[in-house]
Amino acid sequence: MKSFSILTSIFLVLISPILIHTADIDFSYTGKTGPIYWADLKGSNEICRTGKQQSPIDITHEKFNTFSKPDSVTFDDAKNVEIVNDGHTVQVSNKEQILPATMKIGNEDYELAQFHFHTPSEHLINEEYFDVEAHFVFQTKAGNLSVIGVFYDVSDEQNDFLKPIVDNLPLKKNDSHLIDFIKLSKVLQDIDYMNQTYTYPGSLTTPPCGEGVVWWVNTIVQPISLSQYRQLRHVMGFNSRFTQDIYF
Amino acid sequence: MKSFSILTSIFLVLISPILIHTADIDFSYTGKTGPIYWADLKGSNEICRTGKQQSPIDITHEKFNTFSKPDSVTFDDAKNVEIVNDGHTVQVSNKEQILPATMKIGNEDYELAQFHFHTPSEHLINEEYFDVEAHFVFQTKAGNLSVIGVFYDVSDEQNDFLKPIVDNLPLKKNDSHLIDFIKLSKVLQDIDYMNQTYTYPGSLTTPPCGEGVVWWVNTIVQPISLSQYRQLRHVMGFNSRFTQDIYF
Repeated sequence: MKSFSILTSIFLVLISPILIHTADIDFSYTGKTGPIYWADLKGSNEICRTGKQQSPIDITHEKFNTFSKPDSVTFDDAKNVEIVNDGHTVQVSNKEQILPATMKIGNEDYELAQFHFHTPSEHLINEEYFDVEAHFVFQTKAGNLSVIGVFYDVSDEQNDFLKPIVDNLPLKKNDSHLIDFIKLSKVLQDIDYMNQTYTYPGSLTTPPCGEGVVWWVNTIVQPISLSQYRQLRHVMGFNSRFTQDIYF
Repeated sequence: MKSFSILTSIFLVLISPILIHTADIDFSYTGKTGPIYWADLKGSNEICRTGKQQSPIDITHEKFNTFSKPDSVTFDDAKNVEIVNDGHTVQVSNKEQILPATMKIGNEDYELAQFHFHTPSEHLINEEYFDVEAHFVFQTKAGNLSVIGVFYDVSDEQNDFLKPIVDNLPLKKNDSHLIDFIKLSKVLQDIDYMNQTYTYPGSLTTPPCGEGVVWWVNTIVQPISLSQYRQLRHVMGFNSRFTQDIYF
């Protein structure tokens, strides 16, 4: 990437205030509460329209040419996790420290706060999208955020990490299911320990669209079976924000 | 549908002026010439933002509950057609009357002017999208437009209609290929002669976003093989306008 380095990202993390978390804003992906109206919804969402570091983006060869990664990342397997359908996505949150995954950027220590999914992918690579995108949302104690994005494309292979998730999908809004075991350690192995990842300074991709989020978009597209993809897509529907302007 | 009938569509066709065709406007699906900026591009595109009959839309059970179809539709096979990559989509146009397909709405006679593709689908059904959407664009001599939308989803089956198209994809902008034969008659059979189709008054889904377009969105999702889908998606990239507000 031309103008964004690991130093910049450390700087951003250090100067960014505590971020507002995704509140219970009544947003959607279609109609009068859809992405172009998010800035007008109740709450402090103006940045959804006026922000200069909004996500997702189209990651192009012109802007991005150097892989980058955090100083360290660890993912361990998770037991007895709850998956919730919040009406926008299906999400596993780190209640009671059940998600043993960490990240370090400079001196800042992050823990995995939650992960969730989008169909189709929110980020594009050279104007091409992928069938699914997972977001692993890490957070410091001060509330700073960093997200790892992982792409999935339909393939002949089933995905082992996704299997217990798809097998336990909460079908309706506010439904939740308990999952015995998620092979979370497999994610890092699948994405080759983030050796082919682009980073940029962005935002939450849902209202309130808070900025100062350090993004790591992995380019090693993972397999997902057709059945797994269809089930995820059917439960979430279209939940992908359009790509945002780039100012760096 | 509650408030839009076949009579309304006939009325719309009769009152609508000759529509502006998609001009050579330098639009895109990302960045500063992306969908939210189409109204600001050179040309008369204000309606892309201010229009009250814009396409695509999310077709919901609340708004749509009655299937409808044109008074007649015919599709015959086509020989020696040219497929062009215009930088936005891949398109087969009816140069030299090589596309023998017709439609009749009331007293208005339409001929197939062109067909092209979008990945992922532009229309949604109850907030769910599909992997591909084909648009069969019909036109009267006076220039009025009516479009049949057909969805495709990845499946184990290859699609016979799409086979010669995918086998002859023009890979780069302005590339074109000649195709010997397209089994165009199969489309109508595939979509069950439009017995499960919703209609609404909409627009072109690309600048200049001209309105007065009678849409017929078929709900019988067609199979496409994974390889066919991947090839189409890779050539076109993300070329789907976000869903528009509904005023009917």
